[in-house]
Amino acid sequence: MSEYSLYGFSESGNSYKVALMLKLIGADWEPIFVDFGKGATREKQFRDTNVMGEVPVLVHHKSEGDFTLSQSGAILTYLAKRSGKFGGADEMEDLEILRWILFDNHKLTGYTASARFMRTFMGKADEPETKFMHARALSAFKVLDAHLDGRKWVVLDRPTIADISLCGYLFWPDHMGISWDQYPNIKSWLENIQAIEEWSPSEELLPSALAG
Amino acid sequence: MSEYSLYGFSESGNSYKVALMLKLIGADWEPIFVDFGKGATREKQFRDTNVMGEVPVLVHHKSEGDFTLSQSGAILTYLAKRSGKFGGADEMEDLEILRWILFDNHKLTGYTASARFMRTFMGKADEPETKFMHARALSAFKVLDAHLDGRKWVVLDRPTIADISLCGYLFWPDHMGISWDQYPNIKSWLENIQAIEEWSPSEELLPSALAG
Repeated sequence: MSEYSLYGFSESGNSYKVALMLKLIGADWEPIFVDFGKGATREKQFRDTNVMGEVPVLVHHKSEGDFTLSQSGAILTYLAKRSGKFGGADEMEDLEILRWILFDNHKLTGYTASARFMRTFMGKADEPETKFMHARALSAFKVLDAHLDGRKWVVLDRPTIADISLCGYLFWPDHMGISWDQYPNIKSWLENIQAIEEWSPSEELLPSALAG
Repeated sequence: MSEYSLYGFSESGNSYKVALMLKLIGADWEPIFVDFGKGATREKQFRDTNVMGEVPVLVHHKSEGDFTLSQSGAILTYLAKRSGKFGGADEMEDLEILRWILFDNHKLTGYTASARFMRTFMGKADEPETKFMHARALSAFKVLDAHLDGRKWVVLDRPTIADISLCGYLFWPDHMGISWDQYPNIKSWLENIQAIEEWSPSEELLPSALAG
């Protein structure tokens, strides 16, 4: 058995954040497919694993027993501590990383994931709810783009779990009907992430919920 | 000068989370009013303090210089560490607290704050965007209510910053047009919070952005 099991699927950018981290730290892990399209995250068995009813869920198979954790930001924090990679070097750096993970969860991924899902997977691009979430996502891109002016990475002079969190949904600009040319600092930063050795797209790390 | 300054206003539940924490730990602090209604958080001077353009912002006046931090979840984490109160006792407890703070930021406060603002302060209760955000807030209440079944507090057998974060917007059910009678476990849990010595409502801790 692998050291880590990750419940998720490739269309979930939140699952991708964790899969990418596991890849980048060279972990021994395996994906466990969750059939989101068939409602698996809403079923009782999955709710018993995670009352929040969401992927990703990481299971760390330890000698003393399994440790289960949900919420990508908490999982990334755990894996940074385990591996000694992509975390901060002290409390102040950890706090600045946390600040951007919170911004990501609430504003950037929060609105992007919903707008993308409604637009691309539900075909509701013209509904007012979709437009509302889309506009909020663009506001978050504007904040991130302004912050990245003159910076190679979001928090430190090296990539951290803040970068890994924030990029989760951003390699799919076509799913949002946008181009990163409109946000040149985000564009350069995403290229920096793709240039990290061992970087892989979500489709190479996780099974698809759309296939079959 | 006080040890801490908190930029915020009483209608902001995210500001209230931090104000309540400062009150509960017995900190030496003072509020600094941010006139959200007049667009102060969007002005350049405030953006220079916080690129995310949001309250709350905490300034810790230390002998070696000011330390400034935004995002209520990061501020609560910082204050728990400083005070030794309302945090976890080990890494596993801290991770479980973080998991609920992330859920709060993304799902519970995220949708509640928007739905409440659009409904109560913009008078847009019947707009599809408001109904959409309102429905998502109710889903988050359902998750929290199920989790609180048989529990006095969200994570441990004592209140933590997860409770303080999650309750930020929940003492205003009338602003959401709901009653906590529909969510009996949330109702009991909010009563537990109100029973903490030194608990105060937002209006007693922070200046209003609506007054004057």
